[in-house]
Amino acid sequence: MPSPLLVLGLDIGNTRLTAGVVEACGHLHQCWREDNPRAEGATATLSLLGEMIACAQQVYPGLAALGVGFGGPVDLATGTVRRSHHTTGWEGLKLAEILGQVSGLPVFLDNDANVGGLGEAWFGAGRGVHSLLYVNVGTGIGGAVILEGRVHHGAHSNAGEIGHVVIAPESEVICTCGQRGCLECLASGDALAAAARRRLQRDTSRESLLRNYPLSQITGREVSSAAQQGDAIAGEIMRQAGRYLGFAAAAACNVIDPELVVIGGGVSEDNPEYLAAAQQALSEYGTPPVVAHTRLVAAKLGYDAGVIGAATVALQGLNALQ
Amino acid sequence: MPSPLLVLGLDIGNTRLTAGVVEACGHLHQCWREDNPRAEGATATLSLLGEMIACAQQVYPGLAALGVGFGGPVDLATGTVRRSHHTTGWEGLKLAEILGQVSGLPVFLDNDANVGGLGEAWFGAGRGVHSLLYVNVGTGIGGAVILEGRVHHGAHSNAGEIGHVVIAPESEVICTCGQRGCLECLASGDALAAAARRRLQRDTSRESLLRNYPLSQITGREVSSAAQQGDAIAGEIMRQAGRYLGFAAAAACNVIDPELVVIGGGVSEDNPEYLAAAQQALSEYGTPPVVAHTRLVAAKLGYDAGVIGAATVALQGLNALQ
Repeated sequence: MPSPLLVLGLDIGNTRLTAGVVEACGHLHQCWREDNPRAEGATATLSLLGEMIACAQQVYPGLAALGVGFGGPVDLATGTVRRSHHTTGWEGLKLAEILGQVSGLPVFLDNDANVGGLGEAWFGAGRGVHSLLYVNVGTGIGGAVILEGRVHHGAHSNAGEIGHVVIAPESEVICTCGQRGCLECLASGDALAAAARRRLQRDTSRESLLRNYPLSQITGREVSSAAQQGDAIAGEIMRQAGRYLGFAAAAACNVIDPELVVIGGGVSEDNPEYLAAAQQALSEYGTPPVVAHTRLVAAKLGYDAGVIGAATVALQGLNALQ
Repeated sequence: MPSPLLVLGLDIGNTRLTAGVVEACGHLHQCWREDNPRAEGATATLSLLGEMIACAQQVYPGLAALGVGFGGPVDLATGTVRRSHHTTGWEGLKLAEILGQVSGLPVFLDNDANVGGLGEAWFGAGRGVHSLLYVNVGTGIGGAVILEGRVHHGAHSNAGEIGHVVIAPESEVICTCGQRGCLECLASGDALAAAARRRLQRDTSRESLLRNYPLSQITGREVSSAAQQGDAIAGEIMRQAGRYLGFAAAAACNVIDPELVVIGGGVSEDNPEYLAAAQQALSEYGTPPVVAHTRLVAAKLGYDAGVIGAATVALQGLNALQ
């Protein structure tokens, strides 16, 4: 029996580093997780990544390739990090080349949103589907366009930027990108937390589970979790965010007409009401022939999405080489 | 010397039928134009199309294929007309099959917006470009997404529907599609004419070249033409429409990240101020890395766009068959 094709996926997040050995069928064999020593700069992170790769190669000597998901924009042509907002020493770093030298493997790199979308397309909610729009609602909002089972990168490696589609140009809320009323600044985890803080301070008489936290400790996850427990304020905020998400997804669907919309990220997990609000807005604002056939579903890979997605980038890369 | 590859393009518009023999380099050899006898129903139109095809085949006996642009949604898998708003007898018609029997040629069919976009990509403003977003501003607004030099049809043959992206959900204006505040109902030729009529009736004291026409005879072309002649009211309407167009294009560019945005259709012709307003809004509302490299330009094929585009669909189809 020939040994199965195995690749290593590397998920380089801001707080956590994950390496996972994944089979061509998407099965995750083994995983290594470490905190990202990001305060010490890129060199420390790269050193730890090198140890994780070596460890994986010791256990699985036949790894065929390394797929890398990086939490920030990357230049695909050169395998270089374009910028990283949260740590120092990354900008311009030839990440693919460095990790290729460390591992001796062919390296395939992409940003975290594309990696997440590709993983869902091959092994998650999009199994069996040819095209999908993936939206990841975390502290920010990233997205990916998957066409014919591959990441559509666009002319400048910037496709899938649904988080910065302006949906409320008159809004008072200004995004970190400088725009007024992007999807991200109205519906991301950080936006949910900011909305919750505003509401709690304004409606001081309304009860809410969110009052159990100091204002500064509320994140999107607390809002989502409170909503799931029936909290009224959190529920209103989540439904509104879901509507924003569906509104932006409708615009994107009108243009690319995917089979499926997949919503991933911590905020959306286990929150059917949020997804229902998004589906409702998608139906309301999409062109009828487009959205009549377009389902909106939750991502399936959950906690392992990053590392399975990164491995999928390697599998896609190996496919293209054949 | 081998004889050049020639195909026949057929542009089936609501008012006009055009057949043109086009070389593989995009050169239009000869053209036949007829009024569409649409009041007599589909049968009369088909009969006239048959005569036009026969005429072209008599002059050019070696035609390799027939490309057809139809002014309404078509089902690509079956070569069938989905519906036609303006004439009777078209719905469900197996147009590709019928024209194949008439001509004895392989037939490649698409809707007019995709045809226009593909023609511009191969032989017009998009020559040398791999991907573009095409927006046709006529009485309505159609669009096409061209990726790697081919029409991206989407999962349900509905990609490129930028005309029905909702850009002003609170707007008073309701589109023919039933939505409130689509791009089409705010920026199409019909929308420009409606806006002009409203303004002329409201601001009765302001002079305008548009007062030379009975209100009912104002179309988008009159507004565009008056704006080009320096008319203030028409200029304001055109600039606002250009901004709407750029706003919607920004959302689309964030998602698909094309090299180029091409604006076609009668309304945009020879109206640099309108295009400048659209480019300005695209820059304002697009994500900076996306729009920093995305130009917005006028279509180039002009009057012959439909027939050259239809021929291009045939050339694309023959390429795929090879």
